[in-house]
Amino acid sequence: MTRAAGIDVGGTKFLGVVLDDQGNVLVELRRPTPKGSEALISGLVDFARELAAHDSVGYDTLGVGVPGLVTSEGVIRASPNLVGAFDLLVGPLLIEALGHPVSVDNDATCAALAEWQLGAGRGFADLIVVTLGTGIGGGLILGGRLQRGTNGFAGEFGHMVVQPDGPLCPCGRRGCWERFASGRGLQMLAGGRRGEDVVAAARSGDREMLAVIDEFARWVALGLVNLTNIVDPACIVLGGGLSADHDLFLPLIGREFASLLYSPEHRRHPELRFAALGERAGAVGAALLPTTHH
Amino acid sequence: MTRAAGIDVGGTKFLGVVLDDQGNVLVELRRPTPKGSEALISGLVDFARELAAHDSVGYDTLGVGVPGLVTSEGVIRASPNLVGAFDLLVGPLLIEALGHPVSVDNDATCAALAEWQLGAGRGFADLIVVTLGTGIGGGLILGGRLQRGTNGFAGEFGHMVVQPDGPLCPCGRRGCWERFASGRGLQMLAGGRRGEDVVAAARSGDREMLAVIDEFARWVALGLVNLTNIVDPACIVLGGGLSADHDLFLPLIGREFASLLYSPEHRRHPELRFAALGERAGAVGAALLPTTHH
Repeated sequence: MTRAAGIDVGGTKFLGVVLDDQGNVLVELRRPTPKGSEALISGLVDFARELAAHDSVGYDTLGVGVPGLVTSEGVIRASPNLVGAFDLLVGPLLIEALGHPVSVDNDATCAALAEWQLGAGRGFADLIVVTLGTGIGGGLILGGRLQRGTNGFAGEFGHMVVQPDGPLCPCGRRGCWERFASGRGLQMLAGGRRGEDVVAAARSGDREMLAVIDEFARWVALGLVNLTNIVDPACIVLGGGLSADHDLFLPLIGREFASLLYSPEHRRHPELRFAALGERAGAVGAALLPTTHH
Repeated sequence: MTRAAGIDVGGTKFLGVVLDDQGNVLVELRRPTPKGSEALISGLVDFARELAAHDSVGYDTLGVGVPGLVTSEGVIRASPNLVGAFDLLVGPLLIEALGHPVSVDNDATCAALAEWQLGAGRGFADLIVVTLGTGIGGGLILGGRLQRGTNGFAGEFGHMVVQPDGPLCPCGRRGCWERFASGRGLQMLAGGRRGEDVVAAARSGDREMLAVIDEFARWVALGLVNLTNIVDPACIVLGGGLSADHDLFLPLIGREFASLLYSPEHRRHPELRFAALGERAGAVGAALLPTTHH
């Protein structure tokens, strides 16, 4: 029986799990994310040792998911949400400190892997997983394999430009999809009201906020349609913070999707589903990294 | 020595080739495309027999590339540029009439396969081929395999929406990429002047038409950047009618691409190349279909 450990490095916290062979979570731990890149690495080393020691479970393999552009050698090239993380050798430094192999990949790629292997996308050979959080990340499974692209940067769906004269994105371009279809996008469309308040108001019948939710759903659908035209998936899994309100969002996104899809009457539409693994997806996927073909 | 025949079904003509084992073109034939779906099928049957009989070369396998949405069973679901072609059983009907297997796929997918195996994209495991013609088509190679998607519809890049309030597309939506970045797009940006005239004027230093070419290059680059954010290719091959003026277009597209790419300073950029196989690409790729893993 092998034990697979995974750590999801978030902007505010580490989430670590240890899985058994069947993907059951045996251990789950959380710690605040330290500030600065040196503290980040030493904090990760300590956290990995804590996971190894916890309840005498131990682990045989370790994977780590981090936000940003991550190379196949486990180097963070750029991570706007992780302070100081440019050209940070996460993989090599962890391997040196821990003395065993460590797989490192993008956090949304990890979440996609988890949803594909153990979650809402199980069994699909052609699958897109889109994480609608503060921004938008994601991962691609095509031809029955996780596709990372040549640098390991595939799945940066959030920076697909859908409105070239749209609002400025922190990435320096205008009208990126995540300006509209993320948690921040919902807030912008609602004139600055917090997403939770928009949802609550919409649920209580506020017509103005219902219209905002409609507009938001249309932006989400537009990006999903673009992805469908490009890779033709059998299923699209939507994860991230918005999953909590899937009963509100899914029917609206589905309706807009059908109205925007190219040649909708001549094709089988991809199934739209919300993610099954919740906030654990990144850590679970990180744990699956070492045994994933790439 | 096996002989591989391929037929590219264009809106105006059939182009047929027979290749030897090394991909050399032994036979090349052209015939006008007949009007109507029955005439199309019987014309294809006659053309295949003509290819088989030509110069006593013969063929062992046959592939056919057709425009539009083509299922993995060789059924055209919808083909706006091929009159009457909705739910047309091209594959099954050809197999019945000819008495041997026939592989059928989308024409741009065929061109992508050809450029990957024998053209400008040779040797790349992660490759996008974009055909900039009257509209925009394309194909995806990821993880060293041609990716068709679940229905066989992957690569419909032209209908990626890049300007939701943009000009109406015949597909029924607004602001599809091919409204801007195709031959028709160039004409629209030039206020109705023909593409050839725009290019000629730009080459002779016409500042207004140079500005149009700049704007066109920016639209092309914007779509290529979106594709790069999504699949992270090592190389992008540009084919189609605009290839003839690659010396004019490529530097401009390259410059705009670098300025639009997400986090350009932290990644290896994909190589931008123009296609090598010219108008034969579709037929050559069709010939490669029967021996391509899918």
